[in-house]
Amino acid sequence: MRYARIATPEAMTFAVVEGDGEDIKFKAISNHPFEAPEYTGKEYGPDEVRLLAPMLPSKILLIGRNYADHVQEVFNQSASTLPPTLFMKPPTSIIGPGAAIKIPDFAQKVEFEGEIALVISKPCKNVKKENWRDVVLGLTIVNDVSDRNLQFAEGQWTRGKGIDTFCPMGPWIDTDIDAYDLADTKIKGHLTHEGETKTWQDSSTNQMIWDFGEIIEYITGSITLLPGDVISTGSPAGTKRMVPGDTIAIEVEGLGTLRNTVTEA
Amino acid sequence: MRYARIATPEAMTFAVVEGDGEDIKFKAISNHPFEAPEYTGKEYGPDEVRLLAPMLPSKILLIGRNYADHVQEVFNQSASTLPPTLFMKPPTSIIGPGAAIKIPDFAQKVEFEGEIALVISKPCKNVKKENWRDVVLGLTIVNDVSDRNLQFAEGQWTRGKGIDTFCPMGPWIDTDIDAYDLADTKIKGHLTHEGETKTWQDSSTNQMIWDFGEIIEYITGSITLLPGDVISTGSPAGTKRMVPGDTIAIEVEGLGTLRNTVTEA
Repeated sequence: MRYARIATPEAMTFAVVEGDGEDIKFKAISNHPFEAPEYTGKEYGPDEVRLLAPMLPSKILLIGRNYADHVQEVFNQSASTLPPTLFMKPPTSIIGPGAAIKIPDFAQKVEFEGEIALVISKPCKNVKKENWRDVVLGLTIVNDVSDRNLQFAEGQWTRGKGIDTFCPMGPWIDTDIDAYDLADTKIKGHLTHEGETKTWQDSSTNQMIWDFGEIIEYITGSITLLPGDVISTGSPAGTKRMVPGDTIAIEVEGLGTLRNTVTEA
Repeated sequence: MRYARIATPEAMTFAVVEGDGEDIKFKAISNHPFEAPEYTGKEYGPDEVRLLAPMLPSKILLIGRNYADHVQEVFNQSASTLPPTLFMKPPTSIIGPGAAIKIPDFAQKVEFEGEIALVISKPCKNVKKENWRDVVLGLTIVNDVSDRNLQFAEGQWTRGKGIDTFCPMGPWIDTDIDAYDLADTKIKGHLTHEGETKTWQDSSTNQMIWDFGEIIEYITGSITLLPGDVISTGSPAGTKRMVPGDTIAIEVEGLGTLRNTVTEA
């Protein structure tokens, strides 16, 4: 089942998503994705709603350096010498599908990073890797927008990755995890610059160093996760610079596409 | 005015703190510290309440490497070559006064760091340094508990500083900022080990590289702050290892003492 959070002229609400493309329908629910949906009876077409980030998490934890091809590309090292690492983005950096990534003048090398993210379903600590599905509500997409200059000049990545609007998330949460071939799910990043679209990221979860279960076990060995918390599981190779006027679309096979514009702050 | 958050047999509530020592009184309020207090008429003595962390922030941002004496001590460099940096702790790491810092078996070099923290009063962005008081509700104390081994082995500090219980906060928020000599406020860290108390941290805000105004301007140039958000402004020199059985007391002149025990996780 796919859950979105939508804005309509009447309200902001969670909704169940059915269908695709122009036939997509958003069926409003009166509760939240953590229990069986209670439909209000209201239904919207794609032109009647604005999609919001599908969750407002209490924290967003991200795994850096978790795709072998990206470790080689950005850090110029092999994955075996540079292990994955944990970092955070502030909740204030989150934006929804369609919203603008706003680049301030002091951020001169802002790149996209398409990632699969896990949305947590229940309070949990010390979860064994084989039980990760028990604490995950579903999958969504995160674009881990990063200013490379700030990221590397400051040592800690918090500011270079935590600027307002630098965490696009969406378009929805898919709870049907078993429908995915998680060992080889395609991730693509399509950048439209001056009217021309190029696919710069074209990789797969087969490049992941730590899989979802290992990530959940690692994090919950130290940090309690709460319902709605988001764990972004790392970017593959192919990250590229974005400038105002561009549009960036992150596509995850079977999940959908997270598309955002880029403007000046 | 000093605001605490307290647990009584009846409820958890904010309270105004009056008096000191054995004569301290906690006067319950029905609202929150962001507006003038509305007293419920209930009043408690020190033995009738348990103090909680005085705020539950949507995010905790911390400044690393902001005291010249601490930069020399931990990084073995002068402040001029290693500028301050921004990082986060997850909200799940917060504990209140008196609660136990729980050290897991994989954290082998856990140190205390006594810090003055700012509690934000209103949503804000792009605040000029001279206007920092306009967006700060008051001061509190944070102990930025840090496992040095994890902090430096992993590059990003998130896990080494973000483990559950690694963010003691309290004992209260003091809104009377003008009562402090912020250019020379004393910070002390008293560690009790095997019955003997030693004062390892004994420094002052005169060692700060960036002052409160510069920190607020720097952060809000990138990141929107929300009411209740906590900005911890860095630790002076003298951080020391804690082991289970110890008690750590962080004392800030004019503000009070944040005391926590240390146990195994």
